[in-house]
Amino acid sequence: MNRDQVYNFAPGPSTMPESALKTAAAEMLNFRGSGMSVMEISHRSALFQEVFDSACEKLRKLMNVPDTHEILLLQGGATTQFAAIPMNLLEGGTADYAVTGNFSNKAAEEAAKYGTVHIAATTKPTGHDRIPTQAELDLSPDAKYFYYCANNTIYGTEWQYVPETGSTLVCDMSSDILSREVDVSKFGLIYAGAQKNMAPAGLTVVIVDKRLAGRELPITPKILSYKTMIETGSMLNTPPCWCIYMLDLTLDWVIKEGGVKAMDERKRERAGMLYDFLDNSKVLHPHALPGSRSYMNVTFRTDSPELDAAFVKGAAERGLLNLKGHKIAGGMRASVYNAMPVEGAKALVEYMKEFEVRNA
Amino acid sequence: MNRDQVYNFAPGPSTMPESALKTAAAEMLNFRGSGMSVMEISHRSALFQEVFDSACEKLRKLMNVPDTHEILLLQGGATTQFAAIPMNLLEGGTADYAVTGNFSNKAAEEAAKYGTVHIAATTKPTGHDRIPTQAELDLSPDAKYFYYCANNTIYGTEWQYVPETGSTLVCDMSSDILSREVDVSKFGLIYAGAQKNMAPAGLTVVIVDKRLAGRELPITPKILSYKTMIETGSMLNTPPCWCIYMLDLTLDWVIKEGGVKAMDERKRERAGMLYDFLDNSKVLHPHALPGSRSYMNVTFRTDSPELDAAFVKGAAERGLLNLKGHKIAGGMRASVYNAMPVEGAKALVEYMKEFEVRNA
Repeated sequence: MNRDQVYNFAPGPSTMPESALKTAAAEMLNFRGSGMSVMEISHRSALFQEVFDSACEKLRKLMNVPDTHEILLLQGGATTQFAAIPMNLLEGGTADYAVTGNFSNKAAEEAAKYGTVHIAATTKPTGHDRIPTQAELDLSPDAKYFYYCANNTIYGTEWQYVPETGSTLVCDMSSDILSREVDVSKFGLIYAGAQKNMAPAGLTVVIVDKRLAGRELPITPKILSYKTMIETGSMLNTPPCWCIYMLDLTLDWVIKEGGVKAMDERKRERAGMLYDFLDNSKVLHPHALPGSRSYMNVTFRTDSPELDAAFVKGAAERGLLNLKGHKIAGGMRASVYNAMPVEGAKALVEYMKEFEVRNA
Repeated sequence: MNRDQVYNFAPGPSTMPESALKTAAAEMLNFRGSGMSVMEISHRSALFQEVFDSACEKLRKLMNVPDTHEILLLQGGATTQFAAIPMNLLEGGTADYAVTGNFSNKAAEEAAKYGTVHIAATTKPTGHDRIPTQAELDLSPDAKYFYYCANNTIYGTEWQYVPETGSTLVCDMSSDILSREVDVSKFGLIYAGAQKNMAPAGLTVVIVDKRLAGRELPITPKILSYKTMIETGSMLNTPPCWCIYMLDLTLDWVIKEGGVKAMDERKRERAGMLYDFLDNSKVLHPHALPGSRSYMNVTFRTDSPELDAAFVKGAAERGLLNLKGHKIAGGMRASVYNAMPVEGAKALVEYMKEFEVRNA
């Protein structure tokens, strides 16, 4: 298929801005007149440091990151942060975890290796179809931090409020970073795997309050120490240079399109038309409850696995790709991150309408 | 500068095969007719699994990796392995470390967090200008493993023999993997950061004897467990897909050029002409002693830092780039990895000759 015949609803790695891809292709053999690819230059060269600083500055401006917080560009993905966070911040004490899906559950399991994990809330009994309310949060009096995952890709739920917990807030924003305005000063630590809204897989952005650095357990690998990474400007070792370059190009696109505010408006338009259809459909049923719904991952299903499969197959034939739900949730999932054009959501609604008529 | 005016002697990230870069540029917006970039497709898709399997199979064939050993494609760089190795293999016991440069020293320091490190040899007293002999190795009777770094990029030395130690051999081959034939069956674990001979920064290849898996300390982060990564096919989480794709393209080039044997011949030709010149020069002096010299990083210096700087500057004006030595070693370093054409080494010798005449 040609690129213009396709809308890619993959949950991550996922659609990237075409302008970023085009620039990357054009500069592949000769980056900014160096005669070398950006992949061939030293991470300690002035030329690469420019790329690194540019990406950090754009991110700082787009997200209004205060000077109290450092932006780290790391390797290892969210799964690495599942361990790094308790190793750095737990000090062998107690942390509160809200379990609203697969990844917050994994994070809680990993943290239990390094201290006491208190489950402050879980939505498992109802299949993770909602986000707990503030009143439901069972907070520990002595928690070192409160951990939650802002958007649950598998179940299609998203926190629509920032919890008040009295302890340090730690948030996994892997799948909704840059899609909404966030008051970073409220958080001790925000992190995000890049492969949904920022860059290719292989980069993790960590935004950490510098005042939290230096508390790591003695058994913490040096590569996982926030203190060390702050001191070395994310370059204790060679960073994932290509991903950082692609982050810089993607942020150029976000800025050109109008910044986080524009991303926020566009996500409402995309997800809004999908939920509108689902709420009125007799064939396709939304999974997440109103008030808890994700703007990034819209989950739904028919009444049978066979019909689900038919939906996914028919969609793919029209170039609407990767709509199959995660294996642990089943059904369908339309991931509509920042780089998904509004036209992609429109095309999906058109197909849903046809599917409804055929299967009513 | 144009690409054809430049030879890039950077120590890593470093020169990549031009054919790999050209293919990557051509496929950037539409990978194998999918209508998507390889960066936009799921790591769990059949299309990406093909890339992953292809890279692993090529590596297995090129390096003759036996079935007893698993090939893992991970994130985190060598610095992550500095911790992962003792966490997985040390069991709180003793390990022997040969310290022949900066990175083996860092590895030994990190391992000491998780057990007892015995320095089996160190070449620090003579500025790491050589590799210890077999007879010099002071081995512990109960060592869980013997650790060494095959090629020392900063000092330009390289092990020209595989030590006999009686314990599990663990080797950092970051900077000479695929440049020489290796009997993998002799090793418990081989690893290499990709950014010298294989792929862009952000990928670490680990080749581990599966019989060593499952011994990790309870405080090992799941992401660092070899057992977990073997069980999940390197996909506990999203792998660095782009780097794996570039690895596959680079391995295509290695195969086309004649495999590891051809790489070995070519490295001798490149490094040989540089050492030949240096051994006869009155102005430029080689750092490493004969018998311990690296085929990948040729280190040398003049009699003064000022003249060193003049050498580097004059080279850059001729398109011979990134010849400045590492800050902790000073002098110059010509990194001539697999993808450096023999013509690059010739051009450098030509410049050396001119420099010698002007400064005799």
